Amino acid sequence: MNGKIDFGKIMGAVWEERPLVHSISNYVTAHDVANVILACGANPIMTDEPEDVRDIDAIVGAININLGTLNRCTIEAMRLAAQIGKERKCVMVLDPVGAGASRIRTEVAGEMLATGAFDVVKGNISEIMSLAHQSGGARGVDARLSDVVKEDNLGEKVAFCEAFAKEKRILVAVTGAIDIITDGEGSYVVRNGVKEMGRVTGTGCQLSGMVAAYVGANRASKAEAVVAAVCMMGVAGEVALERMQEGEGNATYGNRIIDAISNLTAEEVEERAKYEVY
Amino acid sequence: MNGKIDFGKIMGAVWEERPLVHSISNYVTAHDVANVILACGANPIMTDEPEDVRDIDAIVGAININLGTLNRCTIEAMRLAAQIGKERKCVMVLDPVGAGASRIRTEVAGEMLATGAFDVVKGNISEIMSLAHQSGGARGVDARLSDVVKEDNLGEKVAFCEAFAKEKRILVAVTGAIDIITDGEGSYVVRNGVKEMGRVTGTGCQLSGMVAAYVGANRASKAEAVVAAVCMMGVAGEVALERMQEGEGNATYGNRIIDAISNLTAEEVEERAKYEVY
Amino acid sequence: MNGKIDFGKIMGAVWEERPLVHSISNYVTAHDVANVILACGANPIMTDEPEDVRDIDAIVGAININLGTLNRCTIEAMRLAAQIGKERKCVMVLDPVGAGASRIRTEVAGEMLATGAFDVVKGNISEIMSLAHQSGGARGVDARLSDVVKEDNLGEKVAFCEAFAKEKRILVAVTGAIDIITDGEGSYVVRNGVKEMGRVTGTGCQLSGMVAAYVGANRASKAEAVVAAVCMMGVAGEVALERMQEGEGNATYGNRIIDAISNLTAEEVEERAKYEVY
Repeated sequence: MNGKIDFGKIMGAVWEERPLVHSISNYVTAHDVANVILACGANPIMTDEPEDVRDIDAIVGAININLGTLNRCTIEAMRLAAQIGKERKCVMVLDPVGAGASRIRTEVAGEMLATGAFDVVKGNISEIMSLAHQSGGARGVDARLSDVVKEDNLGEKVAFCEAFAKEKRILVAVTGAIDIITDGEGSYVVRNGVKEMGRVTGTGCQLSGMVAAYVGANRASKAEAVVAAVCMMGVAGEVALERMQEGEGNATYGNRIIDAISNLTAEEVEERAKYEVY
Repeated sequence: MNGKIDFGKIMGAVWEERPLVHSISNYVTAHDVANVILACGANPIMTDEPEDVRDIDAIVGAININLGTLNRCTIEAMRLAAQIGKERKCVMVLDPVGAGASRIRTEVAGEMLATGAFDVVKGNISEIMSLAHQSGGARGVDARLSDVVKEDNLGEKVAFCEAFAKEKRILVAVTGAIDIITDGEGSYVVRNGVKEMGRVTGTGCQLSGMVAAYVGANRASKAEAVVAAVCMMGVAGEVALERMQEGEGNATYGNRIIDAISNLTAEEVEERAKYEVY
Repeated sequence: MNGKIDFGKIMGAVWEERPLVHSISNYVTAHDVANVILACGANPIMTDEPEDVRDIDAIVGAININLGTLNRCTIEAMRLAAQIGKERKCVMVLDPVGAGASRIRTEVAGEMLATGAFDVVKGNISEIMSLAHQSGGARGVDARLSDVVKEDNLGEKVAFCEAFAKEKRILVAVTGAIDIITDGEGSYVVRNGVKEMGRVTGTGCQLSGMVAAYVGANRASKAEAVVAAVCMMGVAGEVALERMQEGEGNATYGNRIIDAISNLTAEEVEERAKYEVY
């Protein structure tokens, strides 16, 4: 973690390599995840049938597993994807949506982490804490108020994430008003984004798809690629908000965020990115 | 049914309580349902895996069951949700999409109603008639022309809805050019909305999600909460139409409707709402 | 194939007959497919539960089967839909998304074709080549670079499509920068559309839904109806691009394409359509 993110290099690699990203997504946000993967320069493919996963994951560069609407069949697909992804050294991202809110989500997320196949786990602070403690208490898919990362508990939260990253040998990305990205040795803190993003469904799922694309094309600098994707999503939320017209609301805002991702240059992201080594 | 809807109180309660609404939605409109629930001030969560439903429905305030793309597994989830929702006295809304168009839809809708777990059933007139008669004849997911509620058959249709509501001990909301909302004792008629809404997929599903949120936060005045949600959706359709720019069509119109829901104040809805005790 | 497409007649028939189109869609693009079917004047219904398909396919006019996110259950539904559609002489369209990228996709697509139930198969060149050769090698859901239809290999590609259409007794529509539509006896070539459409997820799926609607309402001139739908989609992509505002990107572009389909008149499509008998 040397501190300096080369957005031009990281974003350029995605556009050049155009990694094929397999998402086992939820059906609520799948469409926007596909559009975000296209917006950032990569190519999406989705399937959650185990028989199909077997062949598809033999050709993809990155795999993005999202627990948003998991079920018996898709869990089987997730297991297979983790196994093939590990064998083929695919870049693998886990988005443990709702971990802590139900036993099955917490367990599947834990099982995924235990495979050692994943490069990145990205969630809100309650989800990550549930995984660390293998316990529940989350209120749906949002972070509990008592868990939220704030300036006055940032040190403690960073230390918690670092310990978890170290234990699981994985990059941890915790998103919220303040984002934490850590490899267990060092940490970045990102302060981009706006609260209005919380009223659009799926920006978290979109970020996971983008992380898979960014890391997929930047295997030599995975942590920096995650930070770049997190900054990009936050900057896109800021730019989209500035572009809102009178009378527009959360549906249009969601589209403007994806629009921003498809238009932002590395220079613009660099200029607006608020990240620091913590 | 005292006639006067206090939109400020009903809408304010949603924003204050922010009920967590579990939808077993169809995959066609799930994204927009989630966005509408966010737009009106509540929080969405979706799952249709029985094992997951068991835990999720232990923490939610309202449950919205939509038959749009039901299948064997999700029917099992619906049964479990109805059981838990009844035990926990969750607010429960049924949207019997396509009842009358297939035997399985008609049967599952009938089975759901028979549980006695539901507070509200919301559908088009053909769906509600199919449930009343446990018979078919619907043409897909739209109302049959011969069933449509018009000014000259309104009395008869209201009487039919009241009888059905009374028999099933449930709030009945029939939507169309003229909407009827009844608890079996009295009825409201709503005349908001525009025909252009029929060219956008999913406005009916969105309304059901919003009904779950509104009733979830207004348990002491459920009928009024349903009327408020029905007026809100109609007014949003009117406002969105006024905001359409040249060259825009049904995709943008759909987004503008959700935008309107996220922006409309109680005063604006009150001013434009066209409801009456019938 | 007499060369002249009567857009007014073909589009008018859809608006007049308003065919009910059953799509077994993928969950990534289902929402947009429903909106496109509404935009072009027809009515959508979706289901992939076999028990439900049995009844729904007894009342629909056209069936659109898309392999995008197929699974064990939906494959069973596809088989049943093909059987009922054949018995009832429904218009049937196959979109073999990802054929060639996995064995199960290639096999299910081949099985569907072998039923003889389908009127049209619409895919990219790699998908159609995989079906012809019952072999793989595709890179995800996009065409392989080596397969792409270009001006300098057009004759060869048209001949290939004609042979395949003749062998399978089906209309073949291959889409790409240059589109080929053939009944095995003669061929149309279409040159509408813009490369920016490739950055929006689901325009191919939308086209298949629209083809089902167009052919469903124009059984006496199926090939011309397919050509009209292909031209319409390309023209919509052109018109939508012209309407893009500064700062808008692929999410808004996707909406503007559907908007264009809901607004374009037959005269406008006629004026901009670039098709020829090849």
